[in-house]
Amino acid sequence: MSERFKGPGYGPAERQMANALVEIEDRARRKANSVEDCDCKEGMFNGLSRRGLLSASVALAGGAFATRAKAEAPAGAFEYGVQEDPTKEQGRTILDDGGYGSRSQFENEVRWRYPTASLDSSWSMTPLSEGHGIITPSGLHFERHHAGIPTIDPSTHTLTIHGLVDKPLRFTMDDLKRMPAVSRMHFIECSGNGLTEWEQPTLKTVQGTHGLTSTSEWTGVLLSTLLKEVGIQSGAEWILAEGSDAAVMTRSVPLDKAMDDAIIAYAQNGEALRPEQGYPLRLVLPGYEGNTHIKWLRRLDVSDKPFMTREETSKYSDLMPDGKARLFTLTMDAKSVITFPSGDMKLPRAGFYEITGIAWTGRGKVTKVEVSADGGQTWKDAVLDGPILDKCHTRFRLPWTWDGTEAVLQSRCTDETGYVQPMLADLVKVRGTKSVYHLNSIQSWHISTAGEVTNVHA
Amino acid sequence: MSERFKGPGYGPAERQMANALVEIEDRARRKANSVEDCDCKEGMFNGLSRRGLLSASVALAGGAFATRAKAEAPAGAFEYGVQEDPTKEQGRTILDDGGYGSRSQFENEVRWRYPTASLDSSWSMTPLSEGHGIITPSGLHFERHHAGIPTIDPSTHTLTIHGLVDKPLRFTMDDLKRMPAVSRMHFIECSGNGLTEWEQPTLKTVQGTHGLTSTSEWTGVLLSTLLKEVGIQSGAEWILAEGSDAAVMTRSVPLDKAMDDAIIAYAQNGEALRPEQGYPLRLVLPGYEGNTHIKWLRRLDVSDKPFMTREETSKYSDLMPDGKARLFTLTMDAKSVITFPSGDMKLPRAGFYEITGIAWTGRGKVTKVEVSADGGQTWKDAVLDGPILDKCHTRFRLPWTWDGTEAVLQSRCTDETGYVQPMLADLVKVRGTKSVYHLNSIQSWHISTAGEVTNVHA
Repeated sequence: MSERFKGPGYGPAERQMANALVEIEDRARRKANSVEDCDCKEGMFNGLSRRGLLSASVALAGGAFATRAKAEAPAGAFEYGVQEDPTKEQGRTILDDGGYGSRSQFENEVRWRYPTASLDSSWSMTPLSEGHGIITPSGLHFERHHAGIPTIDPSTHTLTIHGLVDKPLRFTMDDLKRMPAVSRMHFIECSGNGLTEWEQPTLKTVQGTHGLTSTSEWTGVLLSTLLKEVGIQSGAEWILAEGSDAAVMTRSVPLDKAMDDAIIAYAQNGEALRPEQGYPLRLVLPGYEGNTHIKWLRRLDVSDKPFMTREETSKYSDLMPDGKARLFTLTMDAKSVITFPSGDMKLPRAGFYEITGIAWTGRGKVTKVEVSADGGQTWKDAVLDGPILDKCHTRFRLPWTWDGTEAVLQSRCTDETGYVQPMLADLVKVRGTKSVYHLNSIQSWHISTAGEVTNVHA
Repeated sequence: MSERFKGPGYGPAERQMANALVEIEDRARRKANSVEDCDCKEGMFNGLSRRGLLSASVALAGGAFATRAKAEAPAGAFEYGVQEDPTKEQGRTILDDGGYGSRSQFENEVRWRYPTASLDSSWSMTPLSEGHGIITPSGLHFERHHAGIPTIDPSTHTLTIHGLVDKPLRFTMDDLKRMPAVSRMHFIECSGNGLTEWEQPTLKTVQGTHGLTSTSEWTGVLLSTLLKEVGIQSGAEWILAEGSDAAVMTRSVPLDKAMDDAIIAYAQNGEALRPEQGYPLRLVLPGYEGNTHIKWLRRLDVSDKPFMTREETSKYSDLMPDGKARLFTLTMDAKSVITFPSGDMKLPRAGFYEITGIAWTGRGKVTKVEVSADGGQTWKDAVLDGPILDKCHTRFRLPWTWDGTEAVLQSRCTDETGYVQPMLADLVKVRGTKSVYHLNSIQSWHISTAGEVTNVHA
């Protein structure tokens, strides 16, 4: 079991999660080992004999998978018998999954729960190191709950809009689904993403340091459509958004944002919202900190001033070195992170690698991502995979040949406002280290001569 | 049970699917009924009393859901107790899904298997009427299998490239994942999409008429990268792609296409390919008919001529009126379909609706979608949701007020080559009705004065 989960205060649930994490780590090591064994004469890379790899693989298939009991299939997977030569045997029948497919039994990435003392208010993080492209699979979208995940019947759920409006209205889900809609891809990032990393490099993997950001295609009604329908009265400046979870999560949203690109979303990645993401209704505020994207949304109260809720005073405010706090720091600044190679991986040997990662900004589009392999002394422009979308993850890539010496990999994002992602030291000079939220500085991954990748402050 | 599944030749599996279909139809009717009951004074639309709706909803929650046994949860869902007032009760615990989430128990869209005589070679279709945006949830991506779904251990799977090449190479999955990659969103459409509709309007729903098209974000290595690595010899013009399913599916691919935008894909929508979509490796040929996107890909054989396999001579060729057949009609022409309102729905009353649907073309980008509500006499330009991507579904929308009289809804797509989606009669004039494949004509939905939507040829 991982060291970080030992000691008092960790019960069975924490240990279970710790085991899941160890499994991830073990798998990452296994993967590195098999790359190490790769036969260069057959593939693109130089290495050792394929015979060794194949026999290891067969042993793995026989031991770890083929005889594994059904109950041990990874989350989100059915378990089937592995076919040694699938061309000689009819495959399994169409629709034996009930008409809604699941991932392969060989894929076992899971969200990882940060070991908070309580399970009641906690978060789980997206395994970014295993991600591809920009879409986050809905089953791996990060979660942050303050009082668990409610189970809501959509046929009775409603959204009420009242306060400084001409005619208060209550909408059923059917009302909302009949209205003009939009579909847009946006990231959501928890402003607590990286909170462990202000003073010391703490968590080993990119899932731990950056896994509180995810991207989905969101579909719903523009909030502006609803607000025009109820009629905003003069003097209105803010809107309280309220969730129907047991925390009755509430945040104040500036009216300008509500009238701009806010979405009352009922769908995510082509189907209904997932329960963890607010089923049946969520407020999506593109580019704003995740906490404001109120899940299980039930009420919007239009007002002349912010409501100063717990979640924007005691919490989700940034304590500065002079003892004052920044409030309503709603827009997420430009940020990026290299996801391969990243913490706790091991490069098997010197040679070719494609460095890849994601970049994003709450202020529009990413315009440039630079990558350094020497701790920031020199930078190269990475290639950005299109489409580059507004307030959305952007995938970047850069070919790199590692010469086997020590290296420090970093990425630096620039957005369309000209803002450049800062170094940690520069951010700390301004903000101190007590802010908790809104850490968006450059991440450094150290590579040892043995190829071990570790989280460092450089 | 639906009429279309009665009679000899339908066993228990067919009946199970028929029941699933009936469930879809029942749900669609329920939804229409609840819109009918919607209280106009509170929401945007005029209607009847909310009291009626609420009591019906509560009865439904108590009867259909709250007491439903765990085993009856829809495919891809966990079952939880419904909370009548979720603000008064702690929600369920984070990560009790094992770290990989599932959809809500209230969502039960499933792929629908077309009732082929055999389950061994069959297809299942995406429920387009329930879709949102452009991404198809991976669990609902259409399937077409010729010999079932193999279960392949990725640690032993390889891709061999040989034939007219300088150095034949075999790649492991680890080799491929280490190479420079791309992530791109593309549709895949089976060229048999709509095959029942050439002569008569046959299937009731848009899932049946158009559900063999889906869109994903695909990630993998450009095939051109691999071909440069093996070195193409002079005279090479075609490549045989071979799958490792029990059908050993083979198709010939022009070298030009292979060197253009073909992807050796190992990921879909941010995670590994789904088993039904070719796990662990699939050839993606953007814009080409689905059958050429070889799943469970294991071999590429470079040649000077096409291989004239069964799947490009006897099958996947288009029989013309003169008895000759068109071969290698690989690129899918521009097409579109209205998904709401669509077949087997019922509009509760005259009034406002947003017409929406999807458009796509294998020849680049969609440039225009026009919508007619009078059977093609007059057309209006629909709004296209961005981003409009190359060889990808594009979502279109048009506000519409139904006056309660008979109407025929149609959509017409134009692509960047200037090609305009044809009327069925015009397509049949050229192709006859024996082509089976490549039906891309305009779909017509008739709306009766009672609001019933039916599939018609207009």
